Amino acid sequence: MKVVVLTGGVGGAKFVLGLQHCAEVAQLTAIVNTGDDFRHLGLHVSPDIDTLLYTLSGQANAMQGWGREGESWNFMAALKGLGGPDWFNLGDGDLALHVLRTERLAQGETLSTLTAGFAQAWGIAASVLPMSDNAVATWLETDEGALPFQSYFVERQCRPVTRAIRFEGAEEARPAPGVLEALADADAVFIAPSNPWLSVDPVLAVPSIAAALRAISAPVIAISPLVGGKAVKGPTTKLMAELGIDADNEAIARHYAGLVSGLLHDSGDTPPTSVPAHSTATLMTSLDDKIRVARGAIAFAKALKA
Amino acid sequence: MKVVVLTGGVGGAKFVLGLQHCAEVAQLTAIVNTGDDFRHLGLHVSPDIDTLLYTLSGQANAMQGWGREGESWNFMAALKGLGGPDWFNLGDGDLALHVLRTERLAQGETLSTLTAGFAQAWGIAASVLPMSDNAVATWLETDEGALPFQSYFVERQCRPVTRAIRFEGAEEARPAPGVLEALADADAVFIAPSNPWLSVDPVLAVPSIAAALRAISAPVIAISPLVGGKAVKGPTTKLMAELGIDADNEAIARHYAGLVSGLLHDSGDTPPTSVPAHSTATLMTSLDDKIRVARGAIAFAKALKA
Repeated sequence: MKVVVLTGGVGGAKFVLGLQHCAEVAQLTAIVNTGDDFRHLGLHVSPDIDTLLYTLSGQANAMQGWGREGESWNFMAALKGLGGPDWFNLGDGDLALHVLRTERLAQGETLSTLTAGFAQAWGIAASVLPMSDNAVATWLETDEGALPFQSYFVERQCRPVTRAIRFEGAEEARPAPGVLEALADADAVFIAPSNPWLSVDPVLAVPSIAAALRAISAPVIAISPLVGGKAVKGPTTKLMAELGIDADNEAIARHYAGLVSGLLHDSGDTPPTSVPAHSTATLMTSLDDKIRVARGAIAFAKALKA
Repeated sequence: MKVVVLTGGVGGAKFVLGLQHCAEVAQLTAIVNTGDDFRHLGLHVSPDIDTLLYTLSGQANAMQGWGREGESWNFMAALKGLGGPDWFNLGDGDLALHVLRTERLAQGETLSTLTAGFAQAWGIAASVLPMSDNAVATWLETDEGALPFQSYFVERQCRPVTRAIRFEGAEEARPAPGVLEALADADAVFIAPSNPWLSVDPVLAVPSIAAALRAISAPVIAISPLVGGKAVKGPTTKLMAELGIDADNEAIARHYAGLVSGLLHDSGDTPPTSVPAHSTATLMTSLDDKIRVARGAIAFAKALKA
């Protein structure tokens, strides 16, 4: 079975890891949000791609939810001592990704080829594709003015009230090589339980990715990020409230209306009525949890296809 | 007493540290070789400036001779795992200097202003001045072809046979702000016991620095890098042999002919005859050694002035 996942960082990566452990998934492609990418200290940081790489190679820091297991922080300590900016944490080992990426992009390599190189170096069998090799930047219009994603998410810890979200450069962005091919060839497409507005929408904002999703005949299933009417992590429900949207699965289904053929949601939550729904326990703490959600998604896709 | 030192990295930094501990040195300026500066992994590395900063702030790794005490190496381990270049070691804490420097240079700051900022952050009283804010690059013509300094020094560990040395950009380089003022104002100028051909010559290759040295009336004293006819560290004598120069103090004195008024050399070595000479034990292991050599240089300068 050929499976494609549209995904953001932490929550999405857990789901992709679950899929990686499903024997029936013969080919796995993750199309990853790059709207969070930014330059910090001159370095090109791709947070969601890195979370995928760390998670799929077994190097992710499980407690922290981002970065590397066993990371050290001597760069940050020295940086603070020199009066450098300390609002965004860069681990010592993590820096290798950012420094190499920055250097290779400057030499003319693309984000997709160098991401493939990193995945190969770490023995990752899945294809990890940035949604685009072109720069797309997520901006939030807030009560504190327009903020780039990381300033909102990390520096201000999601405190500003969001009025609108835009994806700079998305209209002109081309999908990275392999993205459209993987979608056209997929037996099932999943939208990971990432934040629909901040992590999935940038991917869907690339016009030909949304068009490809609408055109394919394979089932497209979104996994709801809500568990008990709340997001497991991050500002999803705060954001929904600020945008005047109810925090329920019906709202998630409507958000993806016209794109998805079904919604997989948590057993404890009310299903949507506007699309076919299927439920399982969607909280992913252990590896078994992740595999259970992945299997639930696959079973639902098969049922919809039959 | 206002003292100026022309210096390279490790050996020179030890001498400058000795001067920093001499009560009679009221004002201390180090004019530092930047011919070893290079871009590595997109980062601007200034090895000699950093060695001065680490040494004068008490953070230098004494055993290793370069880098920081208590350094960790997780960046390098991760870099190797990703197939990145591993011939030049960048410590985790050390990276903070390189990343900040690269970022601030890209924003239009000069090497001299940001070096002053680092020195201030670390509580260094001495002025640490790059010889120039313009790029000067030391190249070696060897039996393996033309090599930039770090490729020769670190990657090939000084193994190639050197035929000539040149300092790209030196002819057009302007001294960094404060360099000529410090020289004009000095009561004594010292040339540190750094490699005359690789570490001091780049400084002297900046035309107005050499001209300023020739013009001043204060004593200019070179400290010989030879101890027992050998360099304490590095390729000085190997290089002298390859360039057809005897490894003795007469050769050192002749190298600096017209620029220096005296040579301070090790008590165990034969003094030069072409310039006034003074001797002390010049091997600098302990802090007391460094202070002794610094005091010897000051006493010699006073004697020449009287």
